[in-house]
Amino acid sequence: MANQFIYNSFQLSYAILGTGALGGYYGACLQKAGLDVHFLLHSDYEYVSKHGLVVESKYGDFTLPQVQAYQEASKMPACDVVIVALKTTQNHLVPQMLPHVVKDNGVVLVLQNGLGVEDEVAKIVGAERVMGGLCFLCSNKVAPGHIRHLDYGQIKIGEYTANYQAAGITNRMQQIAADFERAGIKMELAEDLLLARWQKLVWNIPYNGLSVVLDARTDELMSNPHTRKLVEELMWEVVAGAKSCDRTIPKTFVETMLHYTDKMKPYRTSMKIDYDEKRPLEVETMFGNPLRFAQKKGANLPKITMLYQQLKFLDSRNCN
Amino acid sequence: MANQFIYNSFQLSYAILGTGALGGYYGACLQKAGLDVHFLLHSDYEYVSKHGLVVESKYGDFTLPQVQAYQEASKMPACDVVIVALKTTQNHLVPQMLPHVVKDNGVVLVLQNGLGVEDEVAKIVGAERVMGGLCFLCSNKVAPGHIRHLDYGQIKIGEYTANYQAAGITNRMQQIAADFERAGIKMELAEDLLLARWQKLVWNIPYNGLSVVLDARTDELMSNPHTRKLVEELMWEVVAGAKSCDRTIPKTFVETMLHYTDKMKPYRTSMKIDYDEKRPLEVETMFGNPLRFAQKKGANLPKITMLYQQLKFLDSRNCN
Repeated sequence: MANQFIYNSFQLSYAILGTGALGGYYGACLQKAGLDVHFLLHSDYEYVSKHGLVVESKYGDFTLPQVQAYQEASKMPACDVVIVALKTTQNHLVPQMLPHVVKDNGVVLVLQNGLGVEDEVAKIVGAERVMGGLCFLCSNKVAPGHIRHLDYGQIKIGEYTANYQAAGITNRMQQIAADFERAGIKMELAEDLLLARWQKLVWNIPYNGLSVVLDARTDELMSNPHTRKLVEELMWEVVAGAKSCDRTIPKTFVETMLHYTDKMKPYRTSMKIDYDEKRPLEVETMFGNPLRFAQKKGANLPKITMLYQQLKFLDSRNCN
Repeated sequence: MANQFIYNSFQLSYAILGTGALGGYYGACLQKAGLDVHFLLHSDYEYVSKHGLVVESKYGDFTLPQVQAYQEASKMPACDVVIVALKTTQNHLVPQMLPHVVKDNGVVLVLQNGLGVEDEVAKIVGAERVMGGLCFLCSNKVAPGHIRHLDYGQIKIGEYTANYQAAGITNRMQQIAADFERAGIKMELAEDLLLARWQKLVWNIPYNGLSVVLDARTDELMSNPHTRKLVEELMWEVVAGAKSCDRTIPKTFVETMLHYTDKMKPYRTSMKIDYDEKRPLEVETMFGNPLRFAQKKGANLPKITMLYQQLKFLDSRNCN
């Protein structure tokens, strides 16, 4: 395939666009493993360029007293792997950052929530230089340059292609995975990025959405019979959305997600945390884009639509 | 028709079951107009039996220093017209109150929100002694025996029959209407009670439901394009529900409701007031029963179902 690079014995360089709870954590792990990592920062630039990064983690705390910190993407070197770790609500900044920071034969790995986030990046750097990734991570930034990693951390990556046709496993996926594994991060390789993204939405759409609208933790949503039913119905609408894109999510997957959430500790979703912190919500990528994907294929998802409308209302009022 | 009584020159007697914002207001107006009115009270009994009722109204304030107050329905005389003015969340009390308080040839007028409320009353007193009514009233009880009437007040009444077949206009409807008109209350006679109830739900379901779930006034719901669209979609689902029961609500009715709400002063719905006051919500009669009516006819109303589920969750958490 055209979209494969092989560096042989050379070490990959990494750029982290957005050094927050997610980018800061993965970037720090990669640097700790000996990789060449460049961090783009905004509000924390001054502090981190002086003091480096601190990671508290259930897998062991560590500090990086010195990191390669940048305030502007234009000053960063071109890297082999550029990780987009911004919240999708900041994606309007991405066109200015790329493509300068990605090597001609490099790749942009979009570690963001939702659906369709790769499309925008592909318009800037070309489809052959784009990958997507889904993170299963509980992590917060608790102070400038200070990340608290709470749980999980595995990533599932997949190649992007125009129209999200399944692209299988490529060499460069394996190379990146090897680096992450070296850094202690479990990585799964997805043959079909779009399927992986729809699968993740099976959990994200009901719990993130309802946690904000109903001011509720996962355990509260699961213990009330009405919202539990609603969670399940929303999951089935996600399955229908995937189906409209010719992706099959089996019944057992839905059952597993319900069971998994039953067993989880009471959990405040990331969207609820954003809402409580008065940050803009990732409504468009997590709800709007899946709805538009499905709509284009003629699928009607009434309950997800309603959740989207409710979230748009709450989001616009929250950030005024 | 069998379900008509004619009192000729005799004056009707009225029993008011539930002397709150609604029952207190209408009962006081009827007594002021010279009618024989008997009030059932619960927590306010002591106070009202001593001091009577006070009504502040945009149509003129008045006091009734003496009213016929009762603490128990069993001590009330049998009346010609028994007005059920309880919140539907207290309908479990109705079977004990009726039928003793209604004359053999009397009628129970159910002035409650939602759908199917007459069915339960009919089981107790017989279908031929039941009427339903819909109130368009802004009124609060601000202290024991003290009603503040804010706006509106008209009532639409209709005869109840088994399976809600349209029953036309009867003599007794006209007699009751004449009493209310004498008391300054506009009354409209509906030939088809079920149609009138579905029509009222066109407004009640979106605004009452969303005001609670989104903590919003009517003007906020109307000025955000997403919730405005959702309001309209919920209205169309109510129209579909009515259709499933062979009732046609024209497109212009929906447009009129939207236009009317646009012109309204910012309004906190009655369900939102109940929620804020930590009172149980009338979810079952306003949402559950319409859904069950439609479901029996094979109609699926996904957004109203979702609103019902969200309200059940919030209601159960609110009243604990």
